[in-house]
Amino acid sequence: MITLSSDFGAPYPAAMKGVILQRVDPRLVDVSHEFPRQDVRAAAFWLREVLPWFPPAVHLVVVDPGVGTDRRALVVRAGDHALVGPDNGVLLPAARRLATASDAADGNGGDGEVEVFDYAYGDPASRTFHGRDVFAPAAAAVHEIGVDDLGAADRLTPTDEYEAVSFPDPSLDETGADGEVMVVDDFGNVVTNVPGETLADRVGDRIEVNGLDAPVVRAYAERAPGERLVTVGSHGNVEFAVNQGRGDEAFGLAPRDTVRLSW
Amino acid sequence: MITLSSDFGAPYPAAMKGVILQRVDPRLVDVSHEFPRQDVRAAAFWLREVLPWFPPAVHLVVVDPGVGTDRRALVVRAGDHALVGPDNGVLLPAARRLATASDAADGNGGDGEVEVFDYAYGDPASRTFHGRDVFAPAAAAVHEIGVDDLGAADRLTPTDEYEAVSFPDPSLDETGADGEVMVVDDFGNVVTNVPGETLADRVGDRIEVNGLDAPVVRAYAERAPGERLVTVGSHGNVEFAVNQGRGDEAFGLAPRDTVRLSW
Amino acid sequence: MITLSSDFGAPYPAAMKGVILQRVDPRLVDVSHEFPRQDVRAAAFWLREVLPWFPPAVHLVVVDPGVGTDRRALVVRAGDHALVGPDNGVLLPAARRLATASDAADGNGGDGEVEVFDYAYGDPASRTFHGRDVFAPAAAAVHEIGVDDLGAADRLTPTDEYEAVSFPDPSLDETGADGEVMVVDDFGNVVTNVPGETLADRVGDRIEVNGLDAPVVRAYAERAPGERLVTVGSHGNVEFAVNQGRGDEAFGLAPRDTVRLSW
Repeated sequence: MITLSSDFGAPYPAAMKGVILQRVDPRLVDVSHEFPRQDVRAAAFWLREVLPWFPPAVHLVVVDPGVGTDRRALVVRAGDHALVGPDNGVLLPAARRLATASDAADGNGGDGEVEVFDYAYGDPASRTFHGRDVFAPAAAAVHEIGVDDLGAADRLTPTDEYEAVSFPDPSLDETGADGEVMVVDDFGNVVTNVPGETLADRVGDRIEVNGLDAPVVRAYAERAPGERLVTVGSHGNVEFAVNQGRGDEAFGLAPRDTVRLSW
Repeated sequence: MITLSSDFGAPYPAAMKGVILQRVDPRLVDVSHEFPRQDVRAAAFWLREVLPWFPPAVHLVVVDPGVGTDRRALVVRAGDHALVGPDNGVLLPAARRLATASDAADGNGGDGEVEVFDYAYGDPASRTFHGRDVFAPAAAAVHEIGVDDLGAADRLTPTDEYEAVSFPDPSLDETGADGEVMVVDDFGNVVTNVPGETLADRVGDRIEVNGLDAPVVRAYAERAPGERLVTVGSHGNVEFAVNQGRGDEAFGLAPRDTVRLSW
Repeated sequence: MITLSSDFGAPYPAAMKGVILQRVDPRLVDVSHEFPRQDVRAAAFWLREVLPWFPPAVHLVVVDPGVGTDRRALVVRAGDHALVGPDNGVLLPAARRLATASDAADGNGGDGEVEVFDYAYGDPASRTFHGRDVFAPAAAAVHEIGVDDLGAADRLTPTDEYEAVSFPDPSLDETGADGEVMVVDDFGNVVTNVPGETLADRVGDRIEVNGLDAPVVRAYAERAPGERLVTVGSHGNVEFAVNQGRGDEAFGLAPRDTVRLSW
């Protein structure tokens, strides 16, 4: 199985699929091709949340503002999964999450270590579409080689130097939390980096979000349509939403905005 | 085969696919993940029109404004098909259409009866994403069990109490019809609930739509680009359109608006 | 394998997939369903650029402003590929490109000749959705028959009269080039018909695009975010872009606009 993720819209992902299918015959599953364009951190966050739901697969990821420069291409082994994409940090949070889950499933007491390989990609056909010319062929090769044999593969060299993307840490105290907006989903729900556990004893309370008052609820529909609410989203993080409406508009928040929760 | 329908956009449908593929190995086909958000009636209409074109399948449907509340989860058997989704009415119009088609194909004189099961889903991981935590596992289970053996399945209890979604009936008379806009498609074509047969003898005539004059034609291109027209759409209903343009804008119509056709 | 391309958005492509899967069991790959609506030339351009990356397949293409009129349906054989769609020119540029590649791969000195068949489609169920009622069944039939046996197939009659779509030729001279915008991609990159080779010796130079000054670079990230640039895109043509921004807005250009490059 190969999953595909990018900020490409259409039809560029189809060219990647054609390139893969010229070489191998896996199931193909799109994760998204509508990641916010050139936003490595947002893609890294989404992939960390979505890829762990998949069975073992090769995950092709192309959110790549450095395309055509000398930035490297990486293949990352994470448990039974492999990730393929640019060396800009987009792969690592998902890889670590996958490796941790794999170690937990194996009961081997591992700490979610990943193996990172530099992929030597030579001189590709274009400098503007490495998804087609570099990463799709790499994903096909990784699929063919198999995740257990990456160490012996041509073109792959183990490396321990690679770019990281950092997610901000929230700051918690008695009176509230200072956090940041990680992503806004297609419903307009505002997903933060504040752990959902902070709300565990506050269901039914009202809290303030950057000074805006809203109740903590378990489910969107506990509020009337159009009303603001705070809840724990499916990522396990604090989320600001509007029942049957858009939380980003009602709370006036966008990705990377800072948020102060006061209780 | 499992089809997937939702109002999720991306990347949430990928999490549902991962959950399914952890369990079973069916063909997956997306119907749409761009149904109007939280609009159960629109999704019910689209599904009724699209699902009958499929061979036997499990249809996973998640348009679910009540997620996380105590609304039930349903599995509906309709001929050789099964539908899985929330108990808010979204499944039933498609299920009845599928069952009727199945009965007709079997020549058994059946009247399109469906079997509805309550699906006991326990305590899912989230209260905001039952697509991933309730319905995708249910669809995988239904795929594995098979539509003929649903009656003996764990977690499934036959029920004859479930939510309905009602489509309005048009009112027809000698001078015209009073109807309602069901959906607007991505071209901007305005699909009503008025049966196309009402136009059978009126091709070439001009009629009025809420006072706006337009000719009845068989094909969009019978009018010049940019011109208003009335035709019978692929759903068999009266449709307002503009050749190579947007009918919703030209006629000033949106879903749930009432329309008066005068001839 | 059957690929699907249209300007349908969702959920109409799903109806086409259902119709195909009622008949045959191929891999299905979406190329795009977001081609600019009713824009035959744009779709023809994209298909010419994307389809050659695929292994042998049947390519179902429905960008069809003449749906329901007496325009014909075509099946085109191009090497090991077949294309199915309306007779409005949308298939031919991709078909010729595929046939040329096939001849080159075979080393047979062929000149990329294609075989065009008229597909007799009778009286379809609708006059507004031939994707579902004409072209999807045709694609399924072509998949079943196989590209080598199209000549003997029912409903298919060889024809050498069919519509063409013409791409404008750029005009080049010592001081620059006059070209046209072919498409704008989802990043906002402006793809022209001017061959990339014209820039081969100009990397690092500044040129003018309709009077706007911009440097010629190899990769988007050679410029600071937000800055205009000119480069050779993945189609091999001259492209106007903004690093991490939208070239169409920065250069004030849209499809079919003329452009004067001065160096």
